[in-house]
Amino acid sequence: MKEEKLLYEGKGKKIFQISHSKDQVLLFFKDDLTAYQAKKKGAFENKGEICRKISSLIFKYLEKNGIETHWIEDVSSRQMRCFKTEMIPLEVVIRNRLAGSTAKRLGLKEGQRIEEALLEFYYKRDDLDDPFVSEEQIKQLGLIKNKSLIKDIKEKSFLINKHLQVFFKRANLELVDFKMEFGLFKNKILLADEMSPDSCRIWEEKTGERLDKDRFRRNWGQVKESYQKIECLLFKTWKELSDFKK
Amino acid sequence: MKEEKLLYEGKGKKIFQISHSKDQVLLFFKDDLTAYQAKKKGAFENKGEICRKISSLIFKYLEKNGIETHWIEDVSSRQMRCFKTEMIPLEVVIRNRLAGSTAKRLGLKEGQRIEEALLEFYYKRDDLDDPFVSEEQIKQLGLIKNKSLIKDIKEKSFLINKHLQVFFKRANLELVDFKMEFGLFKNKILLADEMSPDSCRIWEEKTGERLDKDRFRRNWGQVKESYQKIECLLFKTWKELSDFKK
Repeated sequence: MKEEKLLYEGKGKKIFQISHSKDQVLLFFKDDLTAYQAKKKGAFENKGEICRKISSLIFKYLEKNGIETHWIEDVSSRQMRCFKTEMIPLEVVIRNRLAGSTAKRLGLKEGQRIEEALLEFYYKRDDLDDPFVSEEQIKQLGLIKNKSLIKDIKEKSFLINKHLQVFFKRANLELVDFKMEFGLFKNKILLADEMSPDSCRIWEEKTGERLDKDRFRRNWGQVKESYQKIECLLFKTWKELSDFKK
Repeated sequence: MKEEKLLYEGKGKKIFQISHSKDQVLLFFKDDLTAYQAKKKGAFENKGEICRKISSLIFKYLEKNGIETHWIEDVSSRQMRCFKTEMIPLEVVIRNRLAGSTAKRLGLKEGQRIEEALLEFYYKRDDLDDPFVSEEQIKQLGLIKNKSLIKDIKEKSFLINKHLQVFFKRANLELVDFKMEFGLFKNKILLADEMSPDSCRIWEEKTGERLDKDRFRRNWGQVKESYQKIECLLFKTWKELSDFKK
């Protein structure tokens, strides 16, 4: 599909306006890899392709389970056609096991299981390094236009977690935590952005081996191979589920 | 009162064990003034005295209004006898108007009125610079021993805010925000630590002039005079209220 006007270029993606429909955009997945608020930069070949594939797969899986997302169709190996949503300036993180920034900020050891999933909000503002915020701050300081959306966003997030945990477990993977962004489209809240090893912590279930962007953040190597492993395991599971339903 | 074994020395106070009662401690208020996690240091003469006086007054006012505190009696100009509580490792901040760290972290202008009071928790850990935490993190990551206390702490905090706003308003002062610490004593939650211009933002109501530790943090001068002004206005109001009740 012809890329038209560039609307936005982020750390891992470019977003283009689609000329024949003002309601839709084209997401292009780049090979760039960044961490620590883009202070650390890298890339590997076909990273964009792998992340686009995993994202599409997760969006499709969620759609099958009744969760509305911005995904419409895959256009090429790196391109995805999506509804053009009005982004809600929050990053929603769900944690099933403690790792990453929260463990560090609170002086806790990584790996602790969290009994019920922990939901965290971050205020999406690059210039402020996306600060952690409480639900009360969002509502009382007017960080989003319509504070009544919070309840829906939370419910949707926990539901997405429930579905994805089942899916990942079937693939012998553990979904340790993941980041979501939501957008508004015709008064509906859609899961937007991407869902990939760039935005999810994914460990191999049996070995505990880490397969996500932490390999890049912490210089553990085998980044590409790990992303490919996730892609491969999720696709195998997706195929099994599809065959089963036939 | 004779000071006995030093239990703890903080930035603004020393805490001593009282020999004849293992349930009680002596708080000694120092002249030291620190800010930004003690990266900025200062002091002024009689600061300990002024802060002890204001704290005692606020504790007494709250006690009169049915809020239990750790305060027992004033012992000398800088000393206060208190119940020895088991401290809950949280700082509870109530904001009636936006200022300070939250305004900065979220890129918002200082001065914004907050419709209903905003309650924030900080995890009391000097080595981590007292990070901001959500209620969900406290409960789900086990940051305090007994998570069922949270509900009581919140209720008590909002009630304290209600009483103090009335008191400060009568003194032509605005209580912009304040930090509290709570402790457990015989299964009761007591308001502990101190309540002074070191831990509260207090503006003069008519002029908006800032009278609290921000004068020291931001090098505005007149720190001592401002602390004295608060003491003077609160005492005048306290006296008026006491006379009225006679």
